[in-house]
Amino acid sequence: MKIRIVKPLLSVALNEITKREVLLTKAPDTEFDIVNIDEGPMNIECFYEETLASAHVVEKVVEAEREGWNGVFISCFADPAVDASRERVKIPVVGGFQPAALTASLISDKWSIVTISKKPIPLIRKVSRKLGIENNIASIRHIDTPFSDLPNEKIIESRLLKQINKAVDEDGAEAIVLGCTGFGRIAQTLAQKMASKGKPVAVISPTASAIGFLELLIRSGVSHRHFSF
Amino acid sequence: MKIRIVKPLLSVALNEITKREVLLTKAPDTEFDIVNIDEGPMNIECFYEETLASAHVVEKVVEAEREGWNGVFISCFADPAVDASRERVKIPVVGGFQPAALTASLISDKWSIVTISKKPIPLIRKVSRKLGIENNIASIRHIDTPFSDLPNEKIIESRLLKQINKAVDEDGAEAIVLGCTGFGRIAQTLAQKMASKGKPVAVISPTASAIGFLELLIRSGVSHRHFSF
Amino acid sequence: MKIRIVKPLLSVALNEITKREVLLTKAPDTEFDIVNIDEGPMNIECFYEETLASAHVVEKVVEAEREGWNGVFISCFADPAVDASRERVKIPVVGGFQPAALTASLISDKWSIVTISKKPIPLIRKVSRKLGIENNIASIRHIDTPFSDLPNEKIIESRLLKQINKAVDEDGAEAIVLGCTGFGRIAQTLAQKMASKGKPVAVISPTASAIGFLELLIRSGVSHRHFSF
Amino acid sequence: MKIRIVKPLLSVALNEITKREVLLTKAPDTEFDIVNIDEGPMNIECFYEETLASAHVVEKVVEAEREGWNGVFISCFADPAVDASRERVKIPVVGGFQPAALTASLISDKWSIVTISKKPIPLIRKVSRKLGIENNIASIRHIDTPFSDLPNEKIIESRLLKQINKAVDEDGAEAIVLGCTGFGRIAQTLAQKMASKGKPVAVISPTASAIGFLELLIRSGVSHRHFSF
Amino acid sequence: MKIRIVKPLLSVALNEITKREVLLTKAPDTEFDIVNIDEGPMNIECFYEETLASAHVVEKVVEAEREGWNGVFISCFADPAVDASRERVKIPVVGGFQPAALTASLISDKWSIVTISKKPIPLIRKVSRKLGIENNIASIRHIDTPFSDLPNEKIIESRLLKQINKAVDEDGAEAIVLGCTGFGRIAQTLAQKMASKGKPVAVISPTASAIGFLELLIRSGVSHRHFSF
Amino acid sequence: MKIRIVKPLLSVALNEITKREVLLTKAPDTEFDIVNIDEGPMNIECFYEETLASAHVVEKVVEAEREGWNGVFISCFADPAVDASRERVKIPVVGGFQPAALTASLISDKWSIVTISKKPIPLIRKVSRKLGIENNIASIRHIDTPFSDLPNEKIIESRLLKQINKAVDEDGAEAIVLGCTGFGRIAQTLAQKMASKGKPVAVISPTASAIGFLELLIRSGVSHRHFSF
Repeated sequence: MKIRIVKPLLSVALNEITKREVLLTKAPDTEFDIVNIDEGPMNIECFYEETLASAHVVEKVVEAEREGWNGVFISCFADPAVDASRERVKIPVVGGFQPAALTASLISDKWSIVTISKKPIPLIRKVSRKLGIENNIASIRHIDTPFSDLPNEKIIESRLLKQINKAVDEDGAEAIVLGCTGFGRIAQTLAQKMASKGKPVAVISPTASAIGFLELLIRSGVSHRHFSF
Repeated sequence: MKIRIVKPLLSVALNEITKREVLLTKAPDTEFDIVNIDEGPMNIECFYEETLASAHVVEKVVEAEREGWNGVFISCFADPAVDASRERVKIPVVGGFQPAALTASLISDKWSIVTISKKPIPLIRKVSRKLGIENNIASIRHIDTPFSDLPNEKIIESRLLKQINKAVDEDGAEAIVLGCTGFGRIAQTLAQKMASKGKPVAVISPTASAIGFLELLIRSGVSHRHFSF
Repeated sequence: MKIRIVKPLLSVALNEITKREVLLTKAPDTEFDIVNIDEGPMNIECFYEETLASAHVVEKVVEAEREGWNGVFISCFADPAVDASRERVKIPVVGGFQPAALTASLISDKWSIVTISKKPIPLIRKVSRKLGIENNIASIRHIDTPFSDLPNEKIIESRLLKQINKAVDEDGAEAIVLGCTGFGRIAQTLAQKMASKGKPVAVISPTASAIGFLELLIRSGVSHRHFSF
Repeated sequence: MKIRIVKPLLSVALNEITKREVLLTKAPDTEFDIVNIDEGPMNIECFYEETLASAHVVEKVVEAEREGWNGVFISCFADPAVDASRERVKIPVVGGFQPAALTASLISDKWSIVTISKKPIPLIRKVSRKLGIENNIASIRHIDTPFSDLPNEKIIESRLLKQINKAVDEDGAEAIVLGCTGFGRIAQTLAQKMASKGKPVAVISPTASAIGFLELLIRSGVSHRHFSF
Repeated sequence: MKIRIVKPLLSVALNEITKREVLLTKAPDTEFDIVNIDEGPMNIECFYEETLASAHVVEKVVEAEREGWNGVFISCFADPAVDASRERVKIPVVGGFQPAALTASLISDKWSIVTISKKPIPLIRKVSRKLGIENNIASIRHIDTPFSDLPNEKIIESRLLKQINKAVDEDGAEAIVLGCTGFGRIAQTLAQKMASKGKPVAVISPTASAIGFLELLIRSGVSHRHFSF
Repeated sequence: MKIRIVKPLLSVALNEITKREVLLTKAPDTEFDIVNIDEGPMNIECFYEETLASAHVVEKVVEAEREGWNGVFISCFADPAVDASRERVKIPVVGGFQPAALTASLISDKWSIVTISKKPIPLIRKVSRKLGIENNIASIRHIDTPFSDLPNEKIIESRLLKQINKAVDEDGAEAIVLGCTGFGRIAQTLAQKMASKGKPVAVISPTASAIGFLELLIRSGVSHRHFSF
């Protein structure tokens, strides 16, 4: 099966991170590539940047279907243009939020999100309300960190660990969703560190969940509803 | 990866149906087998039968972990003994309801369940409330059919089609979840018939979703929370 | 006070209707004008068209603030680019859905929406879930009519009346929200026809509510939260 | 347009405060006066006092309609006798809670209420559940202050500021509703002080929202449902 | 134990019905009497009548405590003045709605209310939202009958039976709450008639539930929260 | 009336405590006895132990009906096998959670549970979601204590008092539900200690509520829905 990953931003800084993570978690028969949009924002942290990206994301999704890809992962936790893309293609399209949030709901009653800064929280609340699972969210925490620090894994790891710890101790989280597709590869490490502190907790990467969900949908022949406009 | 399917009932009548469906939708590197419980009810349609099966299901799940299987699908839409099993093993364990319900929530805002008869509806309501997605359910319909008719695919198909049609037209369903693991293989056929009527709608099989979700969890190294008793 | 109305579409067919409605319901000291976006879709009935419009809507909102307008009404029931616009300006910005939905919640416990066709219903559900008032909605009905018929008031009126009647009789609606900014001027007529049938029910126009809410916000010096990016 | 403000209490101590606030926020063509009930409690802070006031409030609302007023604001945050009054008159009737709560929901996802003391919190919870927006409330805080201190603006201001600060920092509030009609005129000052601390947040006065909502309803010709008893 | 029943209306027409029902369902050591309020409405079917009754109801509750009664049942399905009364006394006070609604929630997931006419439905919705169990209500139906017909048991019985049947068949009700304290004695008959039709369903009388809940509270020494004003 | 109490565990250590509590709160005409299951777990603190007990609990409930008992209390806060038992008998069956949770909802808007340790919290969340009252729960707290310490009343009392205090001060609880049937007799003492601290709050024992609810159901002739399998 062939999955295209669309980065809804101009920056290619995180493409390599995504690539390495997907290689680790994809099924053996899954091929993939990663493309960025041609125009739009450098990053997406707010509604305005999502607005700048959306139309260009849809173009890339339509192109993916035309070229014969079997599914598309729009690689951003805010699920930008997922609804719009689903109106234009028949192949499955997922973003970063929904697959991770649903995976968390599968394995726990109450889970927390840890995202990069305060800025994307309104986007996250919007998609969580739309998905109908807001009551399952124990808390939305963030590590107060600029995008430019994302490649610095040491810093990211220690800040995430601190917030995950608080989510477990203070908010009653039974699982953790990493709230940025730029964090991904670190999920397993974080889970091991929590376990070694005597606080085992699942840490869910949006990228791994998205790829897994696309494989599930494609293999079972299921796609989103679509309207015959 | 190795997935064990535990049938929480004595009847082996549906094992072949499940086997054929899993062969069609699993990943190429997924091995599986199917075992029944040793003691318990012939079928599960009510809380009482679930009660008779549960302890024996947990035994089979524990045995699967001991034998080196990577995950377990308890093949019943009522998710019997899923919570209890998760307390006893570290490998992922899913039933039929949660994976299908979450897949439906991924691809639509409002979806309906069509189950076999009126009897299991209270079990379904219980798991749907627990999962926190009750508001996404447009309706729970049934085909008023005894378990013994399950092998008669013609009858099952036409009755399901009738209820799916009503769910779409009267209840506003944007996707359909088949509410019995004995229906599974028929999902694609039903979706095609709906499409040919000009009413395209996704039809989700609990078995296909469960296998896909287990593959997702195992590949991404994520399991349920577990308590260090 | 000066209110700018931004039409998030290229079509100017409905500008005159909006102008006449605003003249009837605005405060005496409210000045307004109406501008269309420069690029984008002819109309908005789906997520994809919203995507095409959004960035251009934000431009017009930013321009309005720069030019000294005190508030902006994005004249579309789907609230396109409202969240994104609020990140870029300090003046109040409202769409068509939120003001009407909140007005309906002020005067009734359960209310229904009647929109133009089946197509925008997913957009409406998304904004209603985001607003947190989904449980107050008795039903979302539509008149199955193309945009091109909007200028034909006779047809629109009789079709709306039929659905309003059903919303009251079958769904228990205690108030009606007209789910398209192109319907507006007709609200009073519909309310009178319902009253003359012995079924008095409030009929809420999104345009009238939006203008009223902007006047409320501007006079009381209140605007949306804003983030200091 | 003519709006009558009914104070559902005997004390006239706050009438001047209300008058000054309304003068600052009303539309130029809005005339208003303020009357107190003839019999009833000195103040309303609990269900019992509401009970003592309610029948007398309805009398004043009926009188207002008879005398030709176009709408009535029952000036108390607990919305006393609003439902009962709406059964007796056709003109719009609002209290202090609903307009402020809905204005807060328009401009934010999560907002907090700061009221005068612990006593009215059960009344506030009751009206918030009835309105169907309880999930939008981040917290209900209070300043632990007796009614008799209301005229002391310095004390009130500093205590409100402290609680607003906590609502923003600890509860995630994106907007603030002042939970007492006796606080009103202070809203703008509080918003400015929060902004000067680098924590800009909207502060909503129930009086300003109520007058604005009445103007909206009257101009658009919309009133509550009413039953033909 | 001594329970006082307060009728929040002037009409004594239903006192005998209540007396007979209580005699049938009370515990052997429960003494009771029934008093009406001294001033107020003939009946309660709307918010306005509730307003007229409330202060007088509180007086009777306070008097009951002073005279040594152990608990009070305010015999009306709209729970008039229950909250206010609880602020003035330490003994348990219940109305007709809460005990019946909670009893229905104990024995079923989804239940329906059948009340006397369309008029009290807004009161019922208000108390059901306040109680936090609105999602458990399958439907609110009514028999479109004036209060004056309440003594005509034949008519009442056949009309109730018709609506109960519809609640079970069309709304999925698993239990029925009779939505008027004037219906009470008929509950058992209705349940038997439904059973003899092959549709066994519990029919809950608000009077029987209220007396039972008071006995529960008094015996276990539990009363409502109370505020030390 | 005759009520049988079924202990869903092998341990008889708490039978005497239950007996003494029931003697204090039952109606004078209520006879009762206490039986344990014949096989199963020593205690129930998790889903797995519930699974071991459930089938044996149903046997005891069926036996109780056959022997002429009028109702059954399954004496455990997790409501084990309540749903399954109701499918097999016509007499009322209650557990410890539902009666206590509904009693708390009768007398307060927001209440907290204090249970024995972290282990049973997932069971409690499951039954609270099923009951549809999760939004009424202010918090679920625990005293981090092993079952074997239950007979040590001094320790239990002081630990419960500490958590009740926090529930009132930090979580806004207006009533407390004791989350273990082994705590019961202590409820009144705890309420008195809270009152003497100037923080009066109702403390609800699951045993007292269960017995009271059974008396209510039996006297009013109401039982759960049952399916004619």
